[in-house]
Amino acid sequence: MSKYHHIKQTAYEANMQLPKLGLVLFTFGNVSAADREKGVFAIKPSGVPYKDLTPEKMVIVDFDGNIIEGELRPSSDTLTHAVLYKHWDGINGIVHTHSTYATSWAQSQRCIPIFGTTHADHLTTDIPCAPPMNDELIEGNYEYQTGFQILNHFAELGLDHKEVEMVLVGNHAPFTWGKTADKAVYNSAVLESVAQMAYLTEQINAQAPRLKDTLINKHYQRKHGPDSYYGQ
Amino acid sequence: MSKYHHIKQTAYEANMQLPKLGLVLFTFGNVSAADREKGVFAIKPSGVPYKDLTPEKMVIVDFDGNIIEGELRPSSDTLTHAVLYKHWDGINGIVHTHSTYATSWAQSQRCIPIFGTTHADHLTTDIPCAPPMNDELIEGNYEYQTGFQILNHFAELGLDHKEVEMVLVGNHAPFTWGKTADKAVYNSAVLESVAQMAYLTEQINAQAPRLKDTLINKHYQRKHGPDSYYGQ
Amino acid sequence: MSKYHHIKQTAYEANMQLPKLGLVLFTFGNVSAADREKGVFAIKPSGVPYKDLTPEKMVIVDFDGNIIEGELRPSSDTLTHAVLYKHWDGINGIVHTHSTYATSWAQSQRCIPIFGTTHADHLTTDIPCAPPMNDELIEGNYEYQTGFQILNHFAELGLDHKEVEMVLVGNHAPFTWGKTADKAVYNSAVLESVAQMAYLTEQINAQAPRLKDTLINKHYQRKHGPDSYYGQ
Amino acid sequence: MSKYHHIKQTAYEANMQLPKLGLVLFTFGNVSAADREKGVFAIKPSGVPYKDLTPEKMVIVDFDGNIIEGELRPSSDTLTHAVLYKHWDGINGIVHTHSTYATSWAQSQRCIPIFGTTHADHLTTDIPCAPPMNDELIEGNYEYQTGFQILNHFAELGLDHKEVEMVLVGNHAPFTWGKTADKAVYNSAVLESVAQMAYLTEQINAQAPRLKDTLINKHYQRKHGPDSYYGQ
Repeated sequence: MSKYHHIKQTAYEANMQLPKLGLVLFTFGNVSAADREKGVFAIKPSGVPYKDLTPEKMVIVDFDGNIIEGELRPSSDTLTHAVLYKHWDGINGIVHTHSTYATSWAQSQRCIPIFGTTHADHLTTDIPCAPPMNDELIEGNYEYQTGFQILNHFAELGLDHKEVEMVLVGNHAPFTWGKTADKAVYNSAVLESVAQMAYLTEQINAQAPRLKDTLINKHYQRKHGPDSYYGQ
Repeated sequence: MSKYHHIKQTAYEANMQLPKLGLVLFTFGNVSAADREKGVFAIKPSGVPYKDLTPEKMVIVDFDGNIIEGELRPSSDTLTHAVLYKHWDGINGIVHTHSTYATSWAQSQRCIPIFGTTHADHLTTDIPCAPPMNDELIEGNYEYQTGFQILNHFAELGLDHKEVEMVLVGNHAPFTWGKTADKAVYNSAVLESVAQMAYLTEQINAQAPRLKDTLINKHYQRKHGPDSYYGQ
Repeated sequence: MSKYHHIKQTAYEANMQLPKLGLVLFTFGNVSAADREKGVFAIKPSGVPYKDLTPEKMVIVDFDGNIIEGELRPSSDTLTHAVLYKHWDGINGIVHTHSTYATSWAQSQRCIPIFGTTHADHLTTDIPCAPPMNDELIEGNYEYQTGFQILNHFAELGLDHKEVEMVLVGNHAPFTWGKTADKAVYNSAVLESVAQMAYLTEQINAQAPRLKDTLINKHYQRKHGPDSYYGQ
Repeated sequence: MSKYHHIKQTAYEANMQLPKLGLVLFTFGNVSAADREKGVFAIKPSGVPYKDLTPEKMVIVDFDGNIIEGELRPSSDTLTHAVLYKHWDGINGIVHTHSTYATSWAQSQRCIPIFGTTHADHLTTDIPCAPPMNDELIEGNYEYQTGFQILNHFAELGLDHKEVEMVLVGNHAPFTWGKTADKAVYNSAVLESVAQMAYLTEQINAQAPRLKDTLINKHYQRKHGPDSYYGQ
């Protein structure tokens, strides 16, 4: 058995959650799971239908994007995953989907305003939307640069990747991450739900105000603060 | 067997209806069931996935919010349930969800206009939306104050909680209640459907008129009046 | 066995199609099936959940609304069905639902414009929306008058109930009918789909033109004209 | 066994994908599969419910629309398929649906703007919308002319049917095609998803810009160019 079996199994199971959660059509998504001690991650092979996936088919890649183990070509978004793992500590899972509502916000090139407590239960800011890259970067190493586009946008906004675990890439689609691959998948589903409700909120009331700071802090703290009282 | 087994069982079954009715993502919802003679209610433990729930895991809490029985932490919204049970007679079940359309109206901080007979079959007024609390209350005992925010809004509008069994909490999400936990769940599903149709109605006709009083009364009376002729 | 068993069975099976087609929440709908020789129809009992329905529970009613056989109270909309059967020849099934998109158009008090061939495959006019009744009629025999409201609106518009097998009742919801109960159910599903697409069409292009007459006629004739070539 | 069994089987399996992918209501769709050596295609019989389909029921038609084998009447859209097969080389499958979002764009008589990379992964232009035919053509051999309407619109726009494998027919609905019937079905599902996201994108941001050329080219090339690196 591969010495990477544990992350292959984790990545496999997390990938299989995407169609169950309604977050992907065909193969339009991928999940990776990292082993930081070994400095590698397991990622979905490119273009393989979910029904044909097995843990063994996951591809092992290091944080510079080199293939370490596996017979299939890894996801075309592999370099974006690699850049995020390399530069951001503490994340062990990354998800990319083209889920309907989050992708529509990304295509709109707007960040998602924080309108309610469902959003505030998970993060205290608008969900950021990184602008499309300049032409030089697009024509260069595109997926690699997509990773830096995300890193740079977080740096510009002063966001902490451990507090804001999701981003829209303008004109493209969302990425989410987390301490585990499962948490990253969870974040993708939360993002899609928050994206749908923000869309509806603006349709119902074009002047809907953003959530006020006290409510943002209250909801975030009760789930994530030192005195959190959500969950077991 | 716990002397509270009957309400644990009731609360368990009612909670399990929420994902089947499409009203919750992950653990974003909770149902409680009260025993008024014993002065307690059974409520979902906080953050436990629906697939892992059992009747035994329900937590027993009194109407002041004290935990009476149970090894898990109760829902973070427990104090809101407690306040409603304590101050409103005749209700034996309460539901909280973040269902998509109802939550979007709550985020919009608008009450849901009564546009049709589907709405009038269940209540004769717009579905009220309690305003967000002031900052002092939010930073205080938040969930406890959420209960009073609902009570006060009903008092201001002169609404009877036995006739209007649902409310939106501004920026947050809906609560519903009823004579039984099953009825409260039913009300949550009705609210979500009415919320979706009110949204669509305004999209189709921005000048859509509210239902006229004679139709409101007719539909409500045929289901709920002394000469009602709906159901068996 | 009841001498009305055949229509009870037909009505039962047609009613059971409604939840499968996503046209009803809980018990918000009903189907009837008529035997014109015997002058009666079988209709769903009021407020009985679909999972508890059996053919034997269907109620037999004559065209004046008198209960002929059955131990349960018939649907609260029974008199509307009776009026339509009595005054319109050739229809042997009627369906009432509160399906999401059709009901939203009804609440908007707008007829559904004929925007495309999906619509024209089934009827050559806008889908009519009968206005709400005046207060006197509402406070009188409401469901009976709803039937006449539909009849009168068809008469005013010069519509033939054999060519236009569906109507919206303003502020309320749709009714559909047909030669058989199955055809009436089919029409309810078609109406819901056409209603959703007409809503989206106006959202995408507020100036979307109605279908031109040559296309309307072509599509209707190929399915329903003397030289129709759709189906077997 | 019929010497056309292979395409009957292919067409059958592809047709059965349509309801699974949520692209059709009742019988509102059809798929054909061609054998170019034999100069024929297998197509769904008209108006037969999906649950009653079998490979044997598929009808064999040549590229001029003559029925070669089969006891049932072929789809009413058969001549449109025939024209496309006859005039466009390299396509071996065609799909027609009335899927909700794509049909709503067709009814709106607008082409679908290229707003994001989901779209660019599949084609580099807006999804074209052929205008409705003039009255003479509609009243003539309608389905035959629909084929030419598509061919002419592609010629006017200078589009290559091997690069743009989908079209909206104004006021009507979409057609898609591909090297195989499976690919044509895949294209119908992609079109529906892209159509939904383009609709949402305009709702969220009425000024949403089209994707810039560098991004269009990058995404298309990584899936379809000589150095493509998507898939295995």
